[in-house]
Amino acid sequence: MNAPHELMPTLKPRPLPAAMIEALRARFGERCSTAQAVREQHGRDESPFDVPPPEVVVWCESTEDVAATVTLANEHEVPVIPFGAGSSLEGHLLAVQGGVSIDLSRMNRILRINAEDLTVTVQAGVTRMQLNREIKDTGLFFPIDPGADATIGGMSATRASGTNAVRYGTMRENVLGLTVVTASGEVIHTGTRARKSSAGYDLTRLFVGSEGTLGVMTEITLRLYPLPEAVSAAICSFPSIDAAVRTTIEIIQLGVPIARCELLDANAIRAVNAHDKLGLREAPMLLMEFHGSEASVREQAETVQDLAREHGGADFQWATTPEERTRLWTARHHAYLSGLQMRPGCRAVTTDTCVPISRLADCIDETVAEVDASGLPYFIVGHVGDGNFHVAYLIDPAEPAERATAERLSEQLVARALRMEGTCTGEHGIGLHKMGFLLDETGAGAVEMMRSVKRALDPKNVMNPGKIFEL
Amino acid sequence: MNAPHELMPTLKPRPLPAAMIEALRARFGERCSTAQAVREQHGRDESPFDVPPPEVVVWCESTEDVAATVTLANEHEVPVIPFGAGSSLEGHLLAVQGGVSIDLSRMNRILRINAEDLTVTVQAGVTRMQLNREIKDTGLFFPIDPGADATIGGMSATRASGTNAVRYGTMRENVLGLTVVTASGEVIHTGTRARKSSAGYDLTRLFVGSEGTLGVMTEITLRLYPLPEAVSAAICSFPSIDAAVRTTIEIIQLGVPIARCELLDANAIRAVNAHDKLGLREAPMLLMEFHGSEASVREQAETVQDLAREHGGADFQWATTPEERTRLWTARHHAYLSGLQMRPGCRAVTTDTCVPISRLADCIDETVAEVDASGLPYFIVGHVGDGNFHVAYLIDPAEPAERATAERLSEQLVARALRMEGTCTGEHGIGLHKMGFLLDETGAGAVEMMRSVKRALDPKNVMNPGKIFEL
Repeated sequence: MNAPHELMPTLKPRPLPAAMIEALRARFGERCSTAQAVREQHGRDESPFDVPPPEVVVWCESTEDVAATVTLANEHEVPVIPFGAGSSLEGHLLAVQGGVSIDLSRMNRILRINAEDLTVTVQAGVTRMQLNREIKDTGLFFPIDPGADATIGGMSATRASGTNAVRYGTMRENVLGLTVVTASGEVIHTGTRARKSSAGYDLTRLFVGSEGTLGVMTEITLRLYPLPEAVSAAICSFPSIDAAVRTTIEIIQLGVPIARCELLDANAIRAVNAHDKLGLREAPMLLMEFHGSEASVREQAETVQDLAREHGGADFQWATTPEERTRLWTARHHAYLSGLQMRPGCRAVTTDTCVPISRLADCIDETVAEVDASGLPYFIVGHVGDGNFHVAYLIDPAEPAERATAERLSEQLVARALRMEGTCTGEHGIGLHKMGFLLDETGAGAVEMMRSVKRALDPKNVMNPGKIFEL
Repeated sequence: MNAPHELMPTLKPRPLPAAMIEALRARFGERCSTAQAVREQHGRDESPFDVPPPEVVVWCESTEDVAATVTLANEHEVPVIPFGAGSSLEGHLLAVQGGVSIDLSRMNRILRINAEDLTVTVQAGVTRMQLNREIKDTGLFFPIDPGADATIGGMSATRASGTNAVRYGTMRENVLGLTVVTASGEVIHTGTRARKSSAGYDLTRLFVGSEGTLGVMTEITLRLYPLPEAVSAAICSFPSIDAAVRTTIEIIQLGVPIARCELLDANAIRAVNAHDKLGLREAPMLLMEFHGSEASVREQAETVQDLAREHGGADFQWATTPEERTRLWTARHHAYLSGLQMRPGCRAVTTDTCVPISRLADCIDETVAEVDASGLPYFIVGHVGDGNFHVAYLIDPAEPAERATAERLSEQLVARALRMEGTCTGEHGIGLHKMGFLLDETGAGAVEMMRSVKRALDPKNVMNPGKIFEL
């Protein structure tokens, strides 16, 4: 590794002129706050960093509100940080250069459902669960599911994915178009409601994954999918992580259109058993879901059972009713919080590597050996159908040595993933935490190109500055 | 429509210093040519424009060759135009500002097949048919099929798609990573071989569809797919285009995972009958393909037959042997050339609109009424499963009035597609021909953002200048 990753972010607070605060107060009234508790709530996320909070928070309720805020920020050269659900794991929301937090949670309206086109347009503060609740009667659903009930804006900003990506793709594939407030406060539109387009530079994809550093996405048009005729979920325990992962590799190589293929290691099972009273066998487990016609789901399941059996997979347990499925997936989604509760008072340092599928078993096996040797408590969950897995190292925040050990293990894991031609982040983004890794992964030339794009679109560096790369 | 589209491109020839030619000759020897015939061959594509050819052609055989050429071009502020198979329909290859054509057809090596990861890395000059021939024994295939045997570099540059996109996506979804020579002659790498990543700005997607205006893609890593266990193709004739299109809309809305769903109007059928001696019924036809397990293919076919029957679709004719399928798809791929032969000496003005699926029937119906009233010969083919269709207006190049009529019809069609929230180009790109339409589609703000990106990455405007937008 050439570049150290960020143990502590660089703080470069910039002055917030009184005139800017006054202008925000004049426009937003009660929707503008400098109260300490409010600022602190907007100055934290799920990352292991503690930095001073933003100086002011505004609640925007429209694209015009956002444009007005950004116009002021640009004029006064003050940072703006879009805030959704606060579920970032990589420090995206932290005010390392001070400034204004733009809370988008009140921009939570579904603007247009076009069921006959399988599209929906939402405001950026809509959460994925809210979206699926509100479109339930259309017979359609939005599949991207990062676990947390994140906002669609936040998910777009980090190019999120999660449990369904192996079948339905990530936010990259499922955002059709955007309304964006640019760094100068102008409102532009990208994309159309057509399924594909070759019309000029792919600005939609440039914003998806840009982590708030190029503009604020305020409205997002998404692809939807018909609810499958049949859905069936199953769990299967394995004698080793390696056996579970090798089963997954064969599922993918055979082209089985599996909808979800999640790994939980024995530590994660122990955690969800304790948290959700599940009584699952404490062994590495695959949690799978199959979507399709009745016949297709049956066929997929049979193929996968055969593959699992060859690797010593124990009998499948099926969950075919919606209630049983919800129970299993809720447990999966609780894995992170359940895991944290295994060590009261701990914080998690999480990894997010993703490797070509054939290298996944080696990557996980070597990682497990390393973390076992370290003595740190941990658990592993993974969207293994994509080659993506997360190790959560559970550290005592009062023990700097543990943090250092976790960061060293994380560095070693990223180095391994990069040697295997993978990525340091499959879905969480770079934020503050992985800036050094980005340089290792893509090289100075590509990062410099990103900087050039940033300078061109945000010459005063007001859009979420200090994230992805230092300018 | 606010902006006129381009009836004739703006020519702004720039000087090519003798020192530059000498330097190219010194490096490339025989692989550098200023012969008139060679220049003319590199100064034409399938677009209706005639402009002077590039001043010199070099055949690059490596990324280093490309980097050396671009470095010289940047130094001398001379345009460079990457050239693949010459199958562009929109004037992408035309030397409107003079300069150097970089012929990449000798960069035609498959660099790495990673069958177990479903990825392949190729040089930009590899054609899609060559790729599928060379990976035949792996049990995998590359699905993107724009009809022409285009190069992977050209297909990436225009964000191409074609007949299989309804199931497998476009080049946007299927390019994992790139080696790019930037405008300054530097070599950078984007993406990894992992299936997904959230590592910084999506430079891969920025280059895919950039039409050679931001850099030269020299190596491309692609996703591959397992050859389906069963493949079955069918044709079905309909009493009207409307009936065929309404069948398609229902197929998509139901979520049938159809692999190809192509429309040919009666004129196109007449053309392929004449060209390929097929004896097909001269009526609007859907040409479909189903991929999957035996059971899944059967199930998809049954669903589609039921839908077709409700719209008056005649009996399906099946092609299950590879030979029969090849015969049908070859005819489909010949539609463009067969169509041109219906009017000897003609040229085609082609459209490429793509609309949300629910609007497709209205869009095509209104378009047919308009072109029928004009008296111009034409034919229609379409990747209707995506909402994408092409009208080819067959014009006599000696009759400016016909060209004007065709361009007027094209403008009206694009205006209609944009009203329906679609795009002026589903897969052919903007090139020279659709620059005005891009402005209509996405607005001045978004085009200005594209210009900002261009200026940042290519400050001397040497990379295929004068395409997508005027600087």
